Parts: sequence; C-alpha cells; structure tokens
Amino acid sequence: MTEAIDIPAGWEARGKPPTLFRRFEFVRYSETRAFLDALAALAETRARHPQNINFGATYVNVTLDALDGEAAAPDCEFARAIDALIAGGQG
Amino acid sequence: MTEAIDIPAGWEARGKPPTLFRRFEFVRYSETRAFLDALAALAETRARHPQNINFGATYVNVTLDALDGEAAAPDCEFARAIDALIAGGQG
Repeated sequence: MTEAIDIPAGWEARGKPPTLFRRFEFVRYSETRAFLDALAALAETRARHPQNINFGATYVNVTLDALDGEAAAPDCEFARAIDALIAGGQG
Repeated sequence: MTEAIDIPAGWEARGKPPTLFRRFEFVRYSETRAFLDALAALAETRARHPQNINFGATYVNVTLDALDGEAAAPDCEFARAIDALIAGGQG
C-alpha cells in the first residue's frame, strides 16, 4: 500500500531515499542566529538532527535525512516542526 | 610592496578576493555543537562573521571572507582565532 506524500510547502524532496531541503532567509543576522539556536534545541529535544545545515549571515539552508524504515520517506513531520520555529518566533 | 601571505596550517585560500576554507571534523555531535557555539560567540565578539558555515553531525566547514581594503587578503588572523577554539576546547 502506498500513499501520496504531502511535502510541506516550501520544502523540496530530493533524491532517493528522499531528503528534504528548504532555504530560510532572514533580514538580520540576529534573526538567523535565533533560528539556528531554536533549530539546535529542537534537534536535541528530538535526538534527531538535520543531515546538513548551511548558513551565512542572513540565510539557512536545511537538509533533512529520509526517514528510515521499510519504506524510506521524507521526514515531513520534522520539516513542519522546523517551520513552526519560524511561525512562532517571527510571524 | 607585496608580502607573502602566511596561510594558517589546515586552511586553504580560494578565489579572488581570497576566501579561506577549512573543514573541522569531530567524533561526536556534542563536540560539533560546542565548536559551533564557541564560533558564534567569537563572531559576535568581533562583529565579524564567516561567509558560510556548513555543518552536519560531526563536521563543520568554515569559509571566511577576504579582508576588505586596498589589497584584499585572506583573513588569517580570524582563521587562527577559530583554530584556537579547538586548541582550547579539545586539545
């Protein structure tokens, strides 16, 4: 049984197994920093870390590993939790 | 008048103006995290930030902008200060 995967808006599925990628942009370094700190705290809480984080003063590119298991799938739930950091902190 | 530039060991000068690049590797995420936090604190103290930081669980790739000025040069002094974070925290 397969299900259509609902990739969160703004994220892009790449490769097989499917990683998820999103670029976040900020106006100031202080906002970038706050996001990075919140993301680190989220990752530690979940004991699950992005595969890669690439950042400069005003952007953060996040890549999430595919979920392990019988059917490798993009980690949409982790992606949504990351999105919520922005909604909570800056929206 | 030109002077030979003494690139710190482990760093690589790339492009013109010359950025500096170095890859740092760690055994555990906790060490990666400690380095990232120390690097962020150093950058804030200096009000000077790496052009790019690219990291995963056990590595951090750092790229430093060239110094501005009449003769653009690699920022060797910033590079050495970053190296000192490792020497102090893990050596």
